[in-house]
Amino acid sequence: MEQQAAAPMARNRKVVLREYITGRPPREDDMVLVDGGTVTLRVPEGAAPAVLVKNLHLSCDPYMRGRMRDFHGSYIPPFKPGSVIEGLGVARVVDSTHPGFSAGDIVSGMTGWEEYSLIDKPEQLNKIQQSDIPLSYHLGLLGMPGFTAYAGFYEICSPKKGEFVFVSAASGAVGQIVGQLAKLHGCYVVGSAGTNQKVELLKDKFGFDAAFNYKEEPDLTAALKRYFPEGIDIYFENVGGPMLDAVLLSMRTHGRIAVCGMVSQNALTDPVGIHNIFCLVPKRIRMQGFIQSDHLHMFPQFLSDMAKHYRDGKIVYVEDMSIGLENAPAAFVGLFSGKNVGKQVVCVSQE
Amino acid sequence: MEQQAAAPMARNRKVVLREYITGRPPREDDMVLVDGGTVTLRVPEGAAPAVLVKNLHLSCDPYMRGRMRDFHGSYIPPFKPGSVIEGLGVARVVDSTHPGFSAGDIVSGMTGWEEYSLIDKPEQLNKIQQSDIPLSYHLGLLGMPGFTAYAGFYEICSPKKGEFVFVSAASGAVGQIVGQLAKLHGCYVVGSAGTNQKVELLKDKFGFDAAFNYKEEPDLTAALKRYFPEGIDIYFENVGGPMLDAVLLSMRTHGRIAVCGMVSQNALTDPVGIHNIFCLVPKRIRMQGFIQSDHLHMFPQFLSDMAKHYRDGKIVYVEDMSIGLENAPAAFVGLFSGKNVGKQVVCVSQE
Repeated sequence: MEQQAAAPMARNRKVVLREYITGRPPREDDMVLVDGGTVTLRVPEGAAPAVLVKNLHLSCDPYMRGRMRDFHGSYIPPFKPGSVIEGLGVARVVDSTHPGFSAGDIVSGMTGWEEYSLIDKPEQLNKIQQSDIPLSYHLGLLGMPGFTAYAGFYEICSPKKGEFVFVSAASGAVGQIVGQLAKLHGCYVVGSAGTNQKVELLKDKFGFDAAFNYKEEPDLTAALKRYFPEGIDIYFENVGGPMLDAVLLSMRTHGRIAVCGMVSQNALTDPVGIHNIFCLVPKRIRMQGFIQSDHLHMFPQFLSDMAKHYRDGKIVYVEDMSIGLENAPAAFVGLFSGKNVGKQVVCVSQE
Repeated sequence: MEQQAAAPMARNRKVVLREYITGRPPREDDMVLVDGGTVTLRVPEGAAPAVLVKNLHLSCDPYMRGRMRDFHGSYIPPFKPGSVIEGLGVARVVDSTHPGFSAGDIVSGMTGWEEYSLIDKPEQLNKIQQSDIPLSYHLGLLGMPGFTAYAGFYEICSPKKGEFVFVSAASGAVGQIVGQLAKLHGCYVVGSAGTNQKVELLKDKFGFDAAFNYKEEPDLTAALKRYFPEGIDIYFENVGGPMLDAVLLSMRTHGRIAVCGMVSQNALTDPVGIHNIFCLVPKRIRMQGFIQSDHLHMFPQFLSDMAKHYRDGKIVYVEDMSIGLENAPAAFVGLFSGKNVGKQVVCVSQE
């Protein structure tokens, strides 16, 4: 048997989930950085077409908390304890046996929290045409969070010019884009966030009409009354809990609530009760949960619209970049206490 | 000044609201039957065109509880303490100065809980073409509850043949029709009710595929799992509270919840918290409140469809008739403990 030319080798560190988490927010020590030994930087021979990538940027997203539970009934299966954490990322192709990819290609899609990943479903990767737009933005502005904002705002919120829009977690990966799209649509937009720094960002950087720090408001209903004396037409829901209850009281007739996520709740076993659901009837409110992947037919339009808005200076994006795979657990955990300012990414490697 | 021929006179008893009710279900003694003195059975001269009616049937509807609160922000203003209670009714015109109505006409619309009412907005009355259909059915099958069922099912539930439909308070004025429409649409239909007698009615009279007594189910989630092993596509929500929480866990992907009312909650100051709202996101559930009056463009089609279904024997209707105006308070109060079997009406007079 002939020997192939020796492929380059590299050490491969990885972040694995220690075990399933129940009824509390994730902690750093739920994840552990392990030495995955050396990997051969070549797709193994005889396997189905696959792509070996070097991970450049990894995305920290709240939905990933749902995969840390031992629950198999969701739209996405749980992680396996002891295995590398999966998430969206931007990566460079090192080797490929799939005809659609070659070494050097930059791709985005599901990858692992590790330095090198062997991707056995490369057809799910998107090839990125390199441009003036930062690569990591393909995890935010031009990626899943941006598309979540776009599909949620246009498809679920049914926005009309002049309407009153409220966005919670408004400086986050999704919220900052929802607010800017709503402004471009001619809406009046108010956002909430959990620090004064984020509130300033909403007003100064993202152009929200107003913003407030929910942690400094002893009475959320009163706060919403102050910012929306005529009520709210559209609520883009990212947090759940007491904010949702206050919003329900402040909604206008025929209002829409797009439920994108409930970051205050999705780490809890027994979520806070919502008391004002009855408001749905007299106000004829439509409250609708959604997931971006149901709307993928809009993705090409989204990419083109959003890149244009960005280049025209009409939409800006703020991300919070942690450097180094070893900092990924802390970056992820920070999402649940609002430590991140803007979209949280982890830079594993610059090249 | 010439004297008109003396108009007939009659005594006019009426039911008035004593005072606003806060944070508890209504009691019989919140309403009081008073002697309204004698009325002249003629529309007063010099007034704007009006209609004087003799009330035949009065409707008891849960939404009326909302008008017994001192809250002016709803879609319908509160009652006035000390004044006669308003509600939907069927009545016979005794005298009219409005060109659209003549003595002897049978009408339905907003009237008073009294023997005779002077209606100063007669243009809001509907003239009933007498037929084989019982007059009181214009308060149920062919009236607001029937139309609520029709508009809610077709406009809010987006039903598809073969889907799994759950109806709570299913033997009530609205629920019994929703279930039958869903069956006609080719859906699998299960209803819940609060007595075994009602459960039998659902299965034997209304043709539901299955039905259960929620008071005999210690675990509503387990009960729903039993009746819907594959989950619920459509929930027609009439009750709120723990049933809604259980349903949220049992909904299928892309399910719809039409929120018609929450009779278990609308008498409470501090409604029970709903804990499973987060299910809206992974299951992409649309939950929508509605009021029939937003859909009045469908009313003629509804009347025609429903009368045909009734005549064809495809839809039946059960009402619970109390006899005598003096029994109206008890009839109304009974709605909130489920005392009524079917649509609750009060017969004030047969002719």
